[in-house]
Amino acid sequence: MNRICELFKITYPIVQGGMVWCSGWRLASAVSNAGGLGLLGAGSMHPEVLREHIRKCKAATDKPFGVNVPLMYPEIETIMQLIAEEGVKIVFTSAGNPKAWTRFLKERGVTVAHVVSSSKFAVKCEEAGVDAIVAEGFEAGGHNGREETTSLCLIPAVRKVTSLPLLAAGGIGTGEALLAVQALGAEGAQIGTRFALTKESSAHENFKQLCLNINEGDTKLLLKKLSPTRLVKGDFMSAVETAEACGATVEELQKLLGKGRAKKGLFEGDLKEGELEIGQVASLFRQLQSVEEVMLEIITGYNHKLNDIQDINKK
Amino acid sequence: MNRICELFKITYPIVQGGMVWCSGWRLASAVSNAGGLGLLGAGSMHPEVLREHIRKCKAATDKPFGVNVPLMYPEIETIMQLIAEEGVKIVFTSAGNPKAWTRFLKERGVTVAHVVSSSKFAVKCEEAGVDAIVAEGFEAGGHNGREETTSLCLIPAVRKVTSLPLLAAGGIGTGEALLAVQALGAEGAQIGTRFALTKESSAHENFKQLCLNINEGDTKLLLKKLSPTRLVKGDFMSAVETAEACGATVEELQKLLGKGRAKKGLFEGDLKEGELEIGQVASLFRQLQSVEEVMLEIITGYNHKLNDIQDINKK
Repeated sequence: MNRICELFKITYPIVQGGMVWCSGWRLASAVSNAGGLGLLGAGSMHPEVLREHIRKCKAATDKPFGVNVPLMYPEIETIMQLIAEEGVKIVFTSAGNPKAWTRFLKERGVTVAHVVSSSKFAVKCEEAGVDAIVAEGFEAGGHNGREETTSLCLIPAVRKVTSLPLLAAGGIGTGEALLAVQALGAEGAQIGTRFALTKESSAHENFKQLCLNINEGDTKLLLKKLSPTRLVKGDFMSAVETAEACGATVEELQKLLGKGRAKKGLFEGDLKEGELEIGQVASLFRQLQSVEEVMLEIITGYNHKLNDIQDINKK
Repeated sequence: MNRICELFKITYPIVQGGMVWCSGWRLASAVSNAGGLGLLGAGSMHPEVLREHIRKCKAATDKPFGVNVPLMYPEIETIMQLIAEEGVKIVFTSAGNPKAWTRFLKERGVTVAHVVSSSKFAVKCEEAGVDAIVAEGFEAGGHNGREETTSLCLIPAVRKVTSLPLLAAGGIGTGEALLAVQALGAEGAQIGTRFALTKESSAHENFKQLCLNINEGDTKLLLKKLSPTRLVKGDFMSAVETAEACGATVEELQKLLGKGRAKKGLFEGDLKEGELEIGQVASLFRQLQSVEEVMLEIITGYNHKLNDIQDINKK
């Protein structure tokens, strides 16, 4: 039991990251039912689709769940109104200024966490009045910070500048890693990649199978001139890598990226034309498991490792 | 007490990384005297200079110490003969194939560790018969792997493929981080950056002060077309960044780098013309401390954090 569990009223300090095209009501409710905190990923949902997912999630669990909202979302006003109307109690905001929406949400009784990739932004979160901070390292999948600070360096840096409840994200998929980030100063973990590759994730089967077979070095943070994104090896990643090695401009990269590529890759399973995003930690996992199996492994792994370390230190 | 302590006959599972221009006999003997394992960095020493440092180190400590040898070293045969002649008992090899020198060293009674940045190379280490493996993540200073795998992802990946004693390197400068990497499967840590910034380090005062004042995002892994190197912000880093953003070729980068830049930066303190290398974790430290102070902080930090986590889990 720690502050993260108290804040979100959950059993284990494990939050499932809200991800585009992966985290609908099935995934979020499964994580919440297993004692963690499930998050719907609003980033890939039209407002009325999000409403449907919120309602289905409520029907599927009586435990707390939340919504992740990237603040660059084009219809952000509509989304925030809808979240208030539907009585969502927990919102994780990301990719933007925490000052923009924190007051609006807090006035409506919502618990707010914001995702940062530097301690500078963690300070801004505290000023904005958020309830918790997620510090996301370079190894994370999807969109990412420009400074490339890894979780091992970022978590203590953020812990130094804030006393708020802190979740670590990026590179965490096991109980051992949860224990590691607690040692570094986080109270809990936001886990994306491992949950994106479960049975309950709405990602396409092709994408899941690809990611369950990748090795170290098979993802790379690219598109830094646009919005830094950790891509999985494949045709699209090769095209981006080649373009960037030759010094492609912002306009050239925008043209190469085009529109709707993430949906094509993650949701429709087009491994040739689609944009594929996953965290480095994917290389540790080989099996498509259920959320319940994953949660059990994480909790068991955490307890075993803590016991091992205690035993070694007694010798 | 664990396998790393037993293997190297040291009190704490803390190895001071062998670094160019930073780790001579003063630093190595201070770390060994404080209960860790000090390493001389042969990479920046002519053979006869290394001989002098080995002899001075022997005179300064009766505890075990070792030598780090980058296998790309131009006079590698001379260096290895000299190491054997001087009766060095511990050698850490890096930047090359572990098969090249492990047998030679083992036949002379030397304990051998090899530094890797991927689990693929960890397997090669085991085949080559090394005694221990150092897994070095993307956040580390100096020369680095091409795959950009961070310590949080690399350590469990290496732990999966080998049962050898394992040290983690990259991003570790505190006792909390030592506990974190133990949770991930390492038995100890190789710490470079924090020791490079101690009083006993032979790096230039200008360089130490610069690094004790940097923030997150002030280092970057560049020169990937040559040998990936984590550079500190400054004139030389800007020049490299600009060249690479415009798609500079290998030849262009070689010309830009020239010769002797690391000595100029690290040892002579020329912050304008020199090549400056440090790990991401530098941003956590602000004070020039002695090795003894650093070791005490690490050990105290480790014990406090372990107690905190035990207490929280009892609640």
